[in-house]
Amino acid sequence: MVHLLAVAEGVTVDESIVFAGVLLSLVMIYIASKLGGEISNYLGFPPVLGELIGGVIIGISALKLVVFPEGGATAVDSLLMQFLQFTTNSSPEVVGVIFQENGEIISILSELGVFILLFEIGLESNLSELLKVGTQAVLVAIVGVAVPFAAGTLGLIYFFHAPLIPAVFAGAALTATSIGITSRVLAELGQLTSKEGQIILGAAVVDDVLGIIVLAVVASLATTGEVDVKEVAIIIASAVGFLLGVLFAGGLINQAFLSMAGFFKTRGGIIVPALVLAFILGYIGTVLKLEAILGAFAAGLVLDDTDKREDLEKLTKPIADILVPIFFVVVGARTDLGVLNPAIPANRTGLVIAAFLIVVAILGKLATGLAVFGQPGINRLAIGVGMIPRGEVGLVFAAVGTASGTLSQSLDVAIILMVIVTTFLAPPLLRFIFAPAYGESTPSG
Amino acid sequence: MVHLLAVAEGVTVDESIVFAGVLLSLVMIYIASKLGGEISNYLGFPPVLGELIGGVIIGISALKLVVFPEGGATAVDSLLMQFLQFTTNSSPEVVGVIFQENGEIISILSELGVFILLFEIGLESNLSELLKVGTQAVLVAIVGVAVPFAAGTLGLIYFFHAPLIPAVFAGAALTATSIGITSRVLAELGQLTSKEGQIILGAAVVDDVLGIIVLAVVASLATTGEVDVKEVAIIIASAVGFLLGVLFAGGLINQAFLSMAGFFKTRGGIIVPALVLAFILGYIGTVLKLEAILGAFAAGLVLDDTDKREDLEKLTKPIADILVPIFFVVVGARTDLGVLNPAIPANRTGLVIAAFLIVVAILGKLATGLAVFGQPGINRLAIGVGMIPRGEVGLVFAAVGTASGTLSQSLDVAIILMVIVTTFLAPPLLRFIFAPAYGESTPSG
Repeated sequence: MVHLLAVAEGVTVDESIVFAGVLLSLVMIYIASKLGGEISNYLGFPPVLGELIGGVIIGISALKLVVFPEGGATAVDSLLMQFLQFTTNSSPEVVGVIFQENGEIISILSELGVFILLFEIGLESNLSELLKVGTQAVLVAIVGVAVPFAAGTLGLIYFFHAPLIPAVFAGAALTATSIGITSRVLAELGQLTSKEGQIILGAAVVDDVLGIIVLAVVASLATTGEVDVKEVAIIIASAVGFLLGVLFAGGLINQAFLSMAGFFKTRGGIIVPALVLAFILGYIGTVLKLEAILGAFAAGLVLDDTDKREDLEKLTKPIADILVPIFFVVVGARTDLGVLNPAIPANRTGLVIAAFLIVVAILGKLATGLAVFGQPGINRLAIGVGMIPRGEVGLVFAAVGTASGTLSQSLDVAIILMVIVTTFLAPPLLRFIFAPAYGESTPSG
Repeated sequence: MVHLLAVAEGVTVDESIVFAGVLLSLVMIYIASKLGGEISNYLGFPPVLGELIGGVIIGISALKLVVFPEGGATAVDSLLMQFLQFTTNSSPEVVGVIFQENGEIISILSELGVFILLFEIGLESNLSELLKVGTQAVLVAIVGVAVPFAAGTLGLIYFFHAPLIPAVFAGAALTATSIGITSRVLAELGQLTSKEGQIILGAAVVDDVLGIIVLAVVASLATTGEVDVKEVAIIIASAVGFLLGVLFAGGLINQAFLSMAGFFKTRGGIIVPALVLAFILGYIGTVLKLEAILGAFAAGLVLDDTDKREDLEKLTKPIADILVPIFFVVVGARTDLGVLNPAIPANRTGLVIAAFLIVVAILGKLATGLAVFGQPGINRLAIGVGMIPRGEVGLVFAAVGTASGTLSQSLDVAIILMVIVTTFLAPPLLRFIFAPAYGESTPSG
């Protein structure tokens, strides 16, 4: 295990030092998550907000402790890598390779984090309750995709004279709600199983799928100038097929899990089969060009209420406790606040466009609350606010758009800023809207 | 999180496919671990034996599902990578990069597995009990290093006419017991806290440190022809300093943990600070050129018996349940039984030398049982057998020796075979020796 040597890019790297780098990164991430989370909780905000801010503080924007090999950053930009180089007496070439590998590993751990989060959210959700608000959720999702998309695209064309394709791209980046942020905040506020929470969650899942469809449309529009109808049809068919497949096979999957969990006599007899199920659905989700986290959510959802599921929830908690914060701290650490610097000309234009996009992003999702019908006494504002946070999908639009040359630098900056602001805004806003029902979050280990 | 694009070695890779590959690898690893572990347990053997064999079956020697980029293997050699390429419609270049990254990530997860295992073993051990058998353990360790080393080196020179330096190298490869295998088997047999178990564990920790010192001596002997006294002195001083430092600071560390765990109000308030402590000690262990797992063991050890520690043990279990099997399956998957093929000339000589090394490896450690004094009624055979499994350190000797040109191919093969046989032999042997006390292993989740 230790001192195994691996050769990467012509440089021989001691595996034990790669591992030590991972340990050190995790130490920084955990310290940031606990400090941030505790302070945030103490001040009455959801802990996730503190984790995001803790991430920003140790990330590329501030202390530069946890830095990823992106945006031109190298090992020299990472204080942690410099520390590693100094303490292990490694050469700059070796640390350069370790920097790459470390970034890759922490990224995967953070994806495992959001994966486990969605699995846990699925476990805590109830399929039949979710189906009861299904129509509401789909409606909320459609409004929440259509309004920001239309308003964003048209506004960019009319107010900022943006060309059609970049405007469509930026408008599309406004569509998908971040399931990770939203579901975590709802869970922390104890609102996951409320009617509002279930509608938000269902809508977030649906608009994630819609966002993926929009991305396919827009990306083919940007590269070939026309829409690849076949590809879009395939994605829609896979999404529908996946959801229906999971719904119909759900009982069978649950039976398989229960009989395995009942049969196994060695350690991990409950959690391991459950994860195998989740990982398989996650893999299928990816292969269908949907998302791995949709598989995780589906896996949690189909494991029906039984004694074993109660055990499973307990066993999942500590695993989520150590993996989920990695995701949120990494989101913060990757947030480059450099785009806020008005000394850079592209940023100035970007800031103005960003202000517009942020307004559209917020109002466009608030409008979703109006779409809810037949639910007397429902908190429409809460639903709208719950849909506000944009996350990774928005950043993916920015990345794909910039890589393909479609987006100008100011539009790129504006989208990133929109994601940052909506991500950081939703947790405190939701907390205040749900305030009467909000108790102290309880430590779970 | 999804569709983030990363450029590695000039190839653009979709991060979501890298993640999907990790999910798929973990699915294979978990299926192998559960099938192997359950069958082994059913047949009356420790589950870890089944996990190792399950790993061999899915690894490079048999099904080639989980294959690592080593020994000349490429993505084409991995069925899993071929499946990934087919299902995600990726290019061979992209899958080549994913193969590398996947191997790196699974390796790190497996190292986290043995790290958590040693942390858990440390938690279950009792420092004062361990210190009570300290002299015994040190004696056992010294005998267990000296006898195989001397017998191996001299035997290779006299019977096989090996030159001095390769003989010394191969002899040194016989010294270090695998803490991972031994401690896991002891835990599964419920013998971790028996007097025999504590002596074996203590001796395994000490002989790991001795093994590292021997490696430093032998490696400098092989490269420069003489011993780098300064380097060796530094390693000895670090080892002693680390152990003493942990012993003396133990109470302080425990206090710090307790006050943090008591103060935190958000999720993960107990497990996260405990892991931060373990990761820091693991990092220090690596920097001192010892091992990360020694830090993990020390961290578990210094967290004294309190209510919080009981909670911590419960929280660590599911994390260990999902990480530890990765380590053992990966050890099996990496085991290349190709070295057993007598059609290759170097293997034939290797097989003969291996037979000799295996005998020395077993008898040399059995001798350690005789070194125990002042413990009436102790099971000397159990102690000797418990020290038998050699693991990673032996493989490291083989790798370093082969890379430096010191070891011939037959010696290299012989060392690898010795590690394989002793690793797979110890679990069933220990089970029979401890048979009267062996109950059914209980599922823990």
